[in-house]
Amino acid sequence: MTTHRIENLADGIFSIAMTLLVLNLALPEVETGLTLTTELHTLLFGQTHKFFNYALSFILLAIFWIIQHQQFHFIKRTDHTHLWINIFSLMFVALVPFSTSLTGDYPNETVAKLFFDLNLFILGTLNVLNWTYATKDYRLVDRGLDPRRIAMGNRRDAVIPATILLAMVLSLIIPKWSSCVYLLIPIMLAHPWFRHKKT
Amino acid sequence: MTTHRIENLADGIFSIAMTLLVLNLALPEVETGLTLTTELHTLLFGQTHKFFNYALSFILLAIFWIIQHQQFHFIKRTDHTHLWINIFSLMFVALVPFSTSLTGDYPNETVAKLFFDLNLFILGTLNVLNWTYATKDYRLVDRGLDPRRIAMGNRRDAVIPATILLAMVLSLIIPKWSSCVYLLIPIMLAHPWFRHKKT
Amino acid sequence: MTTHRIENLADGIFSIAMTLLVLNLALPEVETGLTLTTELHTLLFGQTHKFFNYALSFILLAIFWIIQHQQFHFIKRTDHTHLWINIFSLMFVALVPFSTSLTGDYPNETVAKLFFDLNLFILGTLNVLNWTYATKDYRLVDRGLDPRRIAMGNRRDAVIPATILLAMVLSLIIPKWSSCVYLLIPIMLAHPWFRHKKT
Amino acid sequence: MTTHRIENLADGIFSIAMTLLVLNLALPEVETGLTLTTELHTLLFGQTHKFFNYALSFILLAIFWIIQHQQFHFIKRTDHTHLWINIFSLMFVALVPFSTSLTGDYPNETVAKLFFDLNLFILGTLNVLNWTYATKDYRLVDRGLDPRRIAMGNRRDAVIPATILLAMVLSLIIPKWSSCVYLLIPIMLAHPWFRHKKT
Repeated sequence: MTTHRIENLADGIFSIAMTLLVLNLALPEVETGLTLTTELHTLLFGQTHKFFNYALSFILLAIFWIIQHQQFHFIKRTDHTHLWINIFSLMFVALVPFSTSLTGDYPNETVAKLFFDLNLFILGTLNVLNWTYATKDYRLVDRGLDPRRIAMGNRRDAVIPATILLAMVLSLIIPKWSSCVYLLIPIMLAHPWFRHKKT
Repeated sequence: MTTHRIENLADGIFSIAMTLLVLNLALPEVETGLTLTTELHTLLFGQTHKFFNYALSFILLAIFWIIQHQQFHFIKRTDHTHLWINIFSLMFVALVPFSTSLTGDYPNETVAKLFFDLNLFILGTLNVLNWTYATKDYRLVDRGLDPRRIAMGNRRDAVIPATILLAMVLSLIIPKWSSCVYLLIPIMLAHPWFRHKKT
Repeated sequence: MTTHRIENLADGIFSIAMTLLVLNLALPEVETGLTLTTELHTLLFGQTHKFFNYALSFILLAIFWIIQHQQFHFIKRTDHTHLWINIFSLMFVALVPFSTSLTGDYPNETVAKLFFDLNLFILGTLNVLNWTYATKDYRLVDRGLDPRRIAMGNRRDAVIPATILLAMVLSLIIPKWSSCVYLLIPIMLAHPWFRHKKT
Repeated sequence: MTTHRIENLADGIFSIAMTLLVLNLALPEVETGLTLTTELHTLLFGQTHKFFNYALSFILLAIFWIIQHQQFHFIKRTDHTHLWINIFSLMFVALVPFSTSLTGDYPNETVAKLFFDLNLFILGTLNVLNWTYATKDYRLVDRGLDPRRIAMGNRRDAVIPATILLAMVLSLIIPKWSSCVYLLIPIMLAHPWFRHKKT
């Protein structure tokens, strides 16, 4: 089992999960007895939070996909534990369309938000674990890998669970708007402190 | 992050979005109380515009896929901005099955058509941006790339947003038939003025 | 545009279409007011023809996928026309889950069967066209390709549309059982007359 | 037809089947007339067995995917029979989301459990057949392959059908809990007796 094969399965699951997000938009919940025009307006404008959720989940999955590929750029080998960290990670990637549909259907419910947050928190934690496990004693990476690069990977991966913890606290107070905290993730990750320099 | 990885994710999202288009056909909206035969006839012949929409969206996504690959044939490197132009572009690719379902369910509604047009317009504009960004000062392409090829790429990419602007104007007047304007895109792109010569 | 890219998109669309077939099984049409046990028995045993349809469409798509790869084994180049033959071909691949759902929901309706047959007939014809176009004057294949191999490809590809024509005639007479004719396809293609010798 | 192409189609079908499992969660079966909060609690906490089923099927498909790749690591060639063993195997991979939805919708029904068990039993048996066929007289593997490795592959592949037979017996007695037997599979496969040593 080479890392190439895991990346191939991961690319498949990421791209399908990202595309299935759109199915959450495709479920109109309009009342019968309306004219088609009213129905369409309800469908489009009564659901703006669903479009926000679609964009948010798509971007978050894209960020996880980018981080995973940046990790695999340095991970040269795999073993049984590493393989299963990745499979569990993919299990929570595939769960994102469901979590997103919950926050879309129950926008004011704290439980729905917490479910979504928890899904991403586990995903973020598995990401941290993946990098820590692979770089511990240079287990799956090259001996020559710059320790500053390893430390920077740790910093960058920790941004996501930390932000999500903040989102979870906010979910308990203002469930409707707590998701906006997630927008901090791309902003923080764009900061040079968290970025690999391209070679 | 090499361009190869983005292309892999893009191929996945394009192929899923193109296949999910078929789910729009799979939703019969027949009244109960009909015989099965009447129901089937209603389903098939009352929905010819849905088959047209299916074919149209499939062909448009194929055109975007072709253009993207033609661009990536010359784009040798990637950077943070370029990566995100592509991710936003894929977000609107994955949205196409939803936009198509809107035009199928509400064929006479201007709002539905405008939503579909806007989706494709943003996609077309991101395509233009992708090429402009990559070729500006030979940022992500080889120094030796023929400037006429760059100019030709710009011309070709601009065909799509321009045609869609026309479709949007027509959507305000004759929503039911405005989509036919899209058929201009493959016809225009087949013209030698917009085509790469194969080497 | 290399043939590799088309094959990649094709692999994606084939694998998704083959997996989406299962969604046709996932739509129970049970009457309310039944016990769960009766409901389940109705769902499983009242739908045996759906399982047959699932297996049939899966195998037919697999056959088309195999034929396509055997063609691409010899096709070394691509051009604009060849690309579009393949995109239209993929459009009818992606349509198969819908056609299959029609024959599953309306098993006794001739129109449903004819729709399914027509879908596959067009797919088979595009396959013939693909090979004829590519091998005409060695347009997209190597000069050194054995003419007997070209002829054998033509024979093999023609089996499918010919069998489907037979299925269409039978659909007009006995719609419920006409699909069984399709089982002739794998049987005939297993005959040495239609097979590439492995090198 | 190289083994690479089959692996590509298999990766696609595995990743889609694994992601489609989530659609089983996305079908709330709540009664109307409830408040949104009660509805959400019913949806989440009344369906814990569905989350268990999701995780179980995801992990089982991941195990089948790993085994398949370990087999293909040694299988160097393919032939007509081998190709069709794999296509039938993929047909039952794509069926797993449906089988899982049955056990989720009818958790106390023996028939639903047996259907799920049978699906995986056939998949496991085809896996055994794949390896036996490929290694018989070194048909599709290298002459130099260590016979102990072949024997170990046989042992490992046989774990799954054997465990499933046990699950089927338990389904007849305690359908609700019989699935827990499946957890034996990852535990047993983690035992060194069933594992390839990494080189």
